[in-house]
Amino acid sequence: MKIGKNTVPRTAICTSNEDTIVVRGLDLCQDAIGHLNFADYFFLLLTGRRPDAAASAVLNATLVAITEHGFVPSVQAARMTYAAAPDALQGAVAAGILGCGSVILGASETAGRLFVDVAQRVDGGIPQAQAINDALQQLKAQRQPIPGYGHPLHKAMDPRVARLFAVAAEAGADLRHVHLAQAIEAAIPAVFGKDLRLNVSAAIPAVLLGVGFPVQSLRGVPILARTAGLIAHLAEEAESPSGFALSYQATRELVYDGDAPPGFTPTGSPR
Amino acid sequence: MKIGKNTVPRTAICTSNEDTIVVRGLDLCQDAIGHLNFADYFFLLLTGRRPDAAASAVLNATLVAITEHGFVPSVQAARMTYAAAPDALQGAVAAGILGCGSVILGASETAGRLFVDVAQRVDGGIPQAQAINDALQQLKAQRQPIPGYGHPLHKAMDPRVARLFAVAAEAGADLRHVHLAQAIEAAIPAVFGKDLRLNVSAAIPAVLLGVGFPVQSLRGVPILARTAGLIAHLAEEAESPSGFALSYQATRELVYDGDAPPGFTPTGSPR
Amino acid sequence: MKIGKNTVPRTAICTSNEDTIVVRGLDLCQDAIGHLNFADYFFLLLTGRRPDAAASAVLNATLVAITEHGFVPSVQAARMTYAAAPDALQGAVAAGILGCGSVILGASETAGRLFVDVAQRVDGGIPQAQAINDALQQLKAQRQPIPGYGHPLHKAMDPRVARLFAVAAEAGADLRHVHLAQAIEAAIPAVFGKDLRLNVSAAIPAVLLGVGFPVQSLRGVPILARTAGLIAHLAEEAESPSGFALSYQATRELVYDGDAPPGFTPTGSPR
Amino acid sequence: MKIGKNTVPRTAICTSNEDTIVVRGLDLCQDAIGHLNFADYFFLLLTGRRPDAAASAVLNATLVAITEHGFVPSVQAARMTYAAAPDALQGAVAAGILGCGSVILGASETAGRLFVDVAQRVDGGIPQAQAINDALQQLKAQRQPIPGYGHPLHKAMDPRVARLFAVAAEAGADLRHVHLAQAIEAAIPAVFGKDLRLNVSAAIPAVLLGVGFPVQSLRGVPILARTAGLIAHLAEEAESPSGFALSYQATRELVYDGDAPPGFTPTGSPR
Repeated sequence: MKIGKNTVPRTAICTSNEDTIVVRGLDLCQDAIGHLNFADYFFLLLTGRRPDAAASAVLNATLVAITEHGFVPSVQAARMTYAAAPDALQGAVAAGILGCGSVILGASETAGRLFVDVAQRVDGGIPQAQAINDALQQLKAQRQPIPGYGHPLHKAMDPRVARLFAVAAEAGADLRHVHLAQAIEAAIPAVFGKDLRLNVSAAIPAVLLGVGFPVQSLRGVPILARTAGLIAHLAEEAESPSGFALSYQATRELVYDGDAPPGFTPTGSPR
Repeated sequence: MKIGKNTVPRTAICTSNEDTIVVRGLDLCQDAIGHLNFADYFFLLLTGRRPDAAASAVLNATLVAITEHGFVPSVQAARMTYAAAPDALQGAVAAGILGCGSVILGASETAGRLFVDVAQRVDGGIPQAQAINDALQQLKAQRQPIPGYGHPLHKAMDPRVARLFAVAAEAGADLRHVHLAQAIEAAIPAVFGKDLRLNVSAAIPAVLLGVGFPVQSLRGVPILARTAGLIAHLAEEAESPSGFALSYQATRELVYDGDAPPGFTPTGSPR
Repeated sequence: MKIGKNTVPRTAICTSNEDTIVVRGLDLCQDAIGHLNFADYFFLLLTGRRPDAAASAVLNATLVAITEHGFVPSVQAARMTYAAAPDALQGAVAAGILGCGSVILGASETAGRLFVDVAQRVDGGIPQAQAINDALQQLKAQRQPIPGYGHPLHKAMDPRVARLFAVAAEAGADLRHVHLAQAIEAAIPAVFGKDLRLNVSAAIPAVLLGVGFPVQSLRGVPILARTAGLIAHLAEEAESPSGFALSYQATRELVYDGDAPPGFTPTGSPR
Repeated sequence: MKIGKNTVPRTAICTSNEDTIVVRGLDLCQDAIGHLNFADYFFLLLTGRRPDAAASAVLNATLVAITEHGFVPSVQAARMTYAAAPDALQGAVAAGILGCGSVILGASETAGRLFVDVAQRVDGGIPQAQAINDALQQLKAQRQPIPGYGHPLHKAMDPRVARLFAVAAEAGADLRHVHLAQAIEAAIPAVFGKDLRLNVSAAIPAVLLGVGFPVQSLRGVPILARTAGLIAHLAEEAESPSGFALSYQATRELVYDGDAPPGFTPTGSPR
C-alpha cells in the first residue's frame, strides 16, 4: 500500500558490492575496522564525519557515564523478561530499551533541546539571563519539569556531572552549553523556589553539543549505552537469576483496593 | 507471586551511595569515565575484568565490523516502525533489535558454541580433523546449517573476515579459534559437497574467544553493534524518510493466492 | 532507587487466593470464563463495568474491522523479524505492535480526542458548526493532519466506516460522536480546500465513544486487534515464508546517494 | 539483499481493492464486521475456517482465562516501562508481551506439543499408559520440567483448569486431549515422586486441540490474551501509577555481593 508520496527508498549511509562494503564514503574494512573505536564509528555513522579528538573523548565518556546505574526500572524489566523468556536475549534487551522514554532517559534529548533553544535566543540578541528566565518561566507556566535537573538519589551533586564537565574541558571541547547548563542551574531557585541540581541527563547534552553531536539523536546515546548495560545484566541473570525474585519483592506490599465477591478473603499477608 | 526458590535479588555489577557509583569494583567517575572507551567498558561490565590491549582492539573491531550493512531486514523493520511511530525512537530501535535472532545475527553465538565444542573435544584427546568431521557430520545428519558459513552476497570471501583475522593477529590475540574456524572451512566441501566460506558471524566468535570474551554473551555483540547502526538509520529516516517507500516496494509483486468472494477483482496491478 | 513519591503499588484490577481469582470484583472462574466473550472481558477489565449489548456489539465490530488489512508496514516488520528470529514468536509480535504509533494506528486515539474536545466545546455553549470550524482552523494553523480523515487506498469511502456506523446504529449505541465525525467531514473542504473522507481511524472512536469506551484507552483497540492479525500472519509466515522476500523486494530500487571511495562500482543493478 | 530462494511474497490471508477488503475469502464488511465476535474472527484468520459453536466457546473461554492474573512479571515490566515512557503505550505493551516466552506463557505451546506427541504415539498403536510413561521418562532423563504441570500459588488445583474443562464439555468439544492431560497428571507421581497438578498452561492446549486450534499457534493465545490484560493495566497505571513503586520495592532487599573500592560504604540500609 502506498503511504505518502515517496516511493523510492534512499540512503547515504552504506552500500556494497561483492568485494567492498562502503560506509559513509569509507571502505569499511580498509578504513574503519581496526582504526576506529566503536563509539567513534557510531559518531561517523550518525553524522557522516569522523570525530575529532574532543568528540571521541566526550562521546566515549558520556556513553560510559550512563551505561550502568544498578537495578533501575529498565534493568528490572529486562531481567524479568529474560527470566520468563531466556531463549530470546534480544527480546529482553528490547524490553529494557523500551523504557528509554521521555521521563527517564529521554530527558537527555529534552534537556538538549532546551539548551539549543536558549542558545538560539541568545544568538538572536536576547541577553542570556533573560533567555534563561523566559525558558524557565515557560516550563513553570506549563507545569512541566525542568529536563535534566534534580535526581532522586544524588541530592547534592550527581558525581557524573562534574566528571563529564572535566573530561570535556580537558579534551578541549566547546564549553558553551556546559556554561549554559550551569547558568540554568543557578537560575532555578529564583523561579521555582528550590534547588534542583544538574543531573547526568543534562550533563550529557551539555558536553555532546559542544563536540558537534546532533541534538536530534541525543536520545540515541542513552539507548546505545543502556543496551550495553542490559547485555551485562542479562549475562549475570543467566548465571545468577534475580528476575523472579524482583517481581516477588515488588508485590510484597501490594495493596488491592478493588471490589471482591462476598466471602473472599486474601490469603495471609498481602501479595 | 513467588516463582522459583530465590526470593532475594543479588548483583555483583553495580552499587552506589550518595557520592559514589561503584561498577565492578571501580569508582565509575574516578576510574572509568574518561579512562575507558565504551567498548572496553562493556567488556569490563560483562566480565568483571578490564580488557587487555588485544581484547580492546578485537572487541572494538568486531563491533565496528557488524554495526552496519545497509538495508538489512532489521533496519527495514526499524525504519518502517519509526515512520509509523516517530515519537518513540526507542520503539523503532527495539523493533530492529528483535531481529537479532537465531537465523541472522544469533549465528555468532551458535558458531561460537561450535568452536568451543570442537576445541573441548580436541582438549579431551580427539585429533582435530576427527573432531571437526564429527561436528560437521552431526550438523549434516540433523539437516542443520553450519552457523557462520556461507553468505548471500559475498560468495568468495566476506572482506570483513580477513580484516578481523588480521586485526586479531596484529593485536596479539590467541588465534586458536581462528585456526579452528579456517580448518572447519577447509573440511566443509568433503562433508557437504560444496564450498561454504567463513562469514562475519563465524569470524566474530573466532577472534573474540581468543581474547576472553564469554561465549554465553556472544549474541550481545551483534545486538549492541546493530543498536548503534539502527540509531544512525533512524536519524536518516527522520531527515529523509524511506520507511513507507520500503513497505510499498516490498509488496509490488505480492501474490494473493487465497479465496475471494464472487465478482471480486483486484485493482489493476497486484498490490 | 526511589523515583517519585509513591512507594506502595496499588491495583483495583485483580487479586487472588489459593482458591479464587478475583477480577474487577467478579470470580473469574464462576462469573467470567464461559460467560463473557473475550472482547467483553477486555471492556470489563478496562472500565470495571460489564459492557451492555450495544457496547459488546460495537467493541467486537471495531476490533474485527481493524485486525487485518494485508501487508501493512507493521505486518512486514513482524514477518521480517520472525524470519530472522523464528524461535521467539513474542518478539515478532512485539515488533509489529511497535508500529502502532501516532502516525498510523494511534490516529484512532487522536481522532477520539478531537471528537471529545469538540463535544465539550458544544456542551459549553458553542454552536457545533463554530466548534468544528475552530478545531479545524487550529489544526490548519499548526499544519497538522486531521486525524482519521483521508486514506491512501480508499479515496471515496472506506467501506469499514459505513459498516461500523451501521452496526452502532443497529446496536442502539449513542450516535452523537458519529454525527460529529460526519459533520467534521462535511466541514473539511471549506477549511482545507479538499475532500478528506472519514477513515476507519475516525470511525472507531466515533462509535466507541458512544458506548462508554474510555478515550484514554482508544489506542488499545488497534493494538489489541493488530496483535490478533499479527499472530495469524506469523502462522502463515512459519508455513509459507515471505519475510526475506519482502526485504529483498523493498530494496530493488534502493538509491545510494552517499559518497564512495575512488574506483568503487556498485554490482550490476542497484541493490 | 537476497536471503533464501524465495523472492516473491505471497499470502492467502487478505487482499483488497478500492471497494472491498477480502479476508480469508470473506468480504470483511459484509460477512465479518458485526457478524463474528473478535475471538471467532481471530480463529478464522488463523485457520481459514469459521469456528463452530464449540470452537467459539472454547477459544473465548481460554482467552478470558489467561488475560489477567495480577501483577505477574510481564505486567510489572510493562508498568515500569510505561512509567518511564508514557508517550508510547505500544512500547509498554510490547515490553510486556516479550515475557511470553518458553518459561511462563509459552508453556501452553510446549504442553500442546506434548499432548499431540503422545496422541500420535497412541494412534501408532502404543498403549496410552506406555506412551505417557515414555514421554515422562524422557522429560525426566533430560531434567526438563513437565510443561503445564505445577503452579506456585494454586498447589491443589488451579481453579481455571476445572472451569475450562467444564466449558469444553458443555460446548461439545472433543475431549480427547483433556483426558490425556488428566492421565498424564495421574501418571506423574509414579515417575517423578511428587504430585504436580495440571495448571492453566496445560488446560489451554487440552481444550483448544479439541476444537481444531492449530498446535503451531498455541503460543498466540496467551500473547493475545495478555495484550488485553496489559492494556487494562496500563490504563490503570496512567491514572494510578505503580511502576516506579514496584521498582523501588523490588530492590529494598537487594544484595550487592561484588567488589567495592577501599572506603566505600553503602548508604544506610541496602538499596
